[in-house]
Amino acid sequence: MFKQMLAKVRQTCPLIHNITNYVTVNDCANIIIACGASPIMSDDKNEVEEITSVCAGLNINIGTLNSRTIDSMLIAGKKANQLGHPVVLDPVGAGASALRTQTALKLLDEVRFAVIRGNISEIKTLALGSGKTKGVDADVADKVSEQNLDNVVEFAKQFAKKTGAVIAITGAIDIVADSQKAYCIKNGHPMMSDITGTGCQLSAMTTAFVTANKDNVLDATAAAVISMGVAGEIAHGRLSAMDGNSSYRNYIIDAIYNMTPDMLEKGAKYEVR
Amino acid sequence: MFKQMLAKVRQTCPLIHNITNYVTVNDCANIIIACGASPIMSDDKNEVEEITSVCAGLNINIGTLNSRTIDSMLIAGKKANQLGHPVVLDPVGAGASALRTQTALKLLDEVRFAVIRGNISEIKTLALGSGKTKGVDADVADKVSEQNLDNVVEFAKQFAKKTGAVIAITGAIDIVADSQKAYCIKNGHPMMSDITGTGCQLSAMTTAFVTANKDNVLDATAAAVISMGVAGEIAHGRLSAMDGNSSYRNYIIDAIYNMTPDMLEKGAKYEVR
Amino acid sequence: MFKQMLAKVRQTCPLIHNITNYVTVNDCANIIIACGASPIMSDDKNEVEEITSVCAGLNINIGTLNSRTIDSMLIAGKKANQLGHPVVLDPVGAGASALRTQTALKLLDEVRFAVIRGNISEIKTLALGSGKTKGVDADVADKVSEQNLDNVVEFAKQFAKKTGAVIAITGAIDIVADSQKAYCIKNGHPMMSDITGTGCQLSAMTTAFVTANKDNVLDATAAAVISMGVAGEIAHGRLSAMDGNSSYRNYIIDAIYNMTPDMLEKGAKYEVR
Repeated sequence: MFKQMLAKVRQTCPLIHNITNYVTVNDCANIIIACGASPIMSDDKNEVEEITSVCAGLNINIGTLNSRTIDSMLIAGKKANQLGHPVVLDPVGAGASALRTQTALKLLDEVRFAVIRGNISEIKTLALGSGKTKGVDADVADKVSEQNLDNVVEFAKQFAKKTGAVIAITGAIDIVADSQKAYCIKNGHPMMSDITGTGCQLSAMTTAFVTANKDNVLDATAAAVISMGVAGEIAHGRLSAMDGNSSYRNYIIDAIYNMTPDMLEKGAKYEVR
Repeated sequence: MFKQMLAKVRQTCPLIHNITNYVTVNDCANIIIACGASPIMSDDKNEVEEITSVCAGLNINIGTLNSRTIDSMLIAGKKANQLGHPVVLDPVGAGASALRTQTALKLLDEVRFAVIRGNISEIKTLALGSGKTKGVDADVADKVSEQNLDNVVEFAKQFAKKTGAVIAITGAIDIVADSQKAYCIKNGHPMMSDITGTGCQLSAMTTAFVTANKDNVLDATAAAVISMGVAGEIAHGRLSAMDGNSSYRNYIIDAIYNMTPDMLEKGAKYEVR
Repeated sequence: MFKQMLAKVRQTCPLIHNITNYVTVNDCANIIIACGASPIMSDDKNEVEEITSVCAGLNINIGTLNSRTIDSMLIAGKKANQLGHPVVLDPVGAGASALRTQTALKLLDEVRFAVIRGNISEIKTLALGSGKTKGVDADVADKVSEQNLDNVVEFAKQFAKKTGAVIAITGAIDIVADSQKAYCIKNGHPMMSDITGTGCQLSAMTTAFVTANKDNVLDATAAAVISMGVAGEIAHGRLSAMDGNSSYRNYIIDAIYNMTPDMLEKGAKYEVR
């Protein structure tokens, strides 16, 4: 099933509009190409509507947001909605500043997202930040583990129901959920967190997957998350004693480039809850 | 002949001012160093005149243009013209938005370029966009092949005549032309298009080559284009089964770093039309 | 002694706020992770106070400064001072434009720095630019060598006394000085200057070291400088005939990732003056 998702990206080569941070933007562009799609980066409010119109999907990442680009995110997001293009939100650092939290919440209010991908803290900020509850819901612990997995799955399904988006919470165990069904994915390697921007890269690649597979956003998102995890495993197997996080970064993108649909399908480790 | 061009970059180590996009800027800096020159990136309108004055050449790339940097491009371009510094234009995405097309055309109006480098679609947008003709000239097809090569060469020579710039149209076959003479270059590898920013890198390197060889901009541009192509071939030969586009990106810059003038001369595959 | 400094970074994993240029920002993030700390990049004036408050140290790099980010640097710097967080200044290109020189001097006036790291020209600009003396002090030559080392050490100590910051002047010989004591460090490899941003990376990593070792800023800065030099040596030893500056860039970050405290201590080459 997941293998068709990757195959479809390669067949259709969707053009993806990215409004993303300048820290990891090059890796985002290269991983979009690696999975078979094509990237455009553009963040000026005077052109984002046009750029998003020539594309088929939109990736919004608030990692180095500023007053100029926040407007562009809103404008592009609304246009993509009008056109029926899938839009992915990566709320980088939501919770770390009011500007990030408020921007993410404003985007949620004004734009309909196909997927929201973040770590558990970022997603919790979005889920709880707009309500009257301050602080952190005690039922949803900060790290996802086997012990609290059911709770986090339920939390993700509820937030999916509320937003209409597929929710991807990535970490040691990745959860990809809509309101009904959740994939709990156990691919990947802990060393992936020693590279800046694996999350950003995943959000960019997820946009490619859901754009190529608009009729099945849940599975397409899971396929992207699994692809990243399998690539992290393959790349880790390739590390020499002298390699570190910088070479690992290259090897992961390389592994996406060389991943066949069968490698993805066979490498997938997940359960459904 | 081409080998002297590279040797001259290494001997003179020209300082190159870059106003370029944030997607590929790091690779642009590293390839400028790899070929023997030295980069400075600066895009604030309050300093670009000074920065361009301490440099010897200017590279303008509109890949992630915004209202702030467009002004800087115009100011820096005019200053470089006053100083007699070669200026290179990379009209990334011209045609994809009105902002890009209009900015590129405004730059063409107000700044005298030594070289304009882009893909066939971008160059066609510049050549046709400012006139009364809308849409695409039927005589200039979208992909350059052996079949339409004479037409594209003639188109490039005409645009070179009109602008006074050397025109570099890069793709499967690269064309580097002034109003009289065109090099048709067949170096490179198709996988180069799987890396983000090989075009940006080439524009940056071209600025170094024409700055070091101001008396022969046509041959210097051809030498830069051939260098990139030969590097793409050498780097491709180095790929292992697990390498993908990310390692390939590194290997191409590495190949420029290790390229001797003789390797360039012997590797060159071109004809003159 | 130096080995405890690196060990402390790994133990405490300090969160480092970076306001830095878009050229080398990805490498800065990855090297901060490689040494054991954690990076956040944020440059909008509406959030920098909050971001710097959740961090433990601040790295200010003026490499691609603009009107928007200059304000953010000042705001974040003052906030970090209030909180007692170490602040590092990398005055990239000070002296190359009035905007850079004035910004660096304004930062020196309004923010108290733990460390100022630059090349000899940048540091001289800061030391002399604010006084009545124009041009270059004849006693402090532009390249640091064995011949003028005593003069440069004295210059560094004087500037350290004036600013209260540890001064790190990096080049063929690196000098790390407070008002009383200077380390003259002879690690590294000349090829490191063929990579864009080794200086930026060092400033980022230095922020991690001094944040983890606030009680001994001088030795922590020296430890960071030595780490970078030893990594440059290890990475150089790893280069194959086809590797160039792009692979070297990756290998240096890899070497920091794999560096043990003992490797640092044993690899250190320095004298005290």
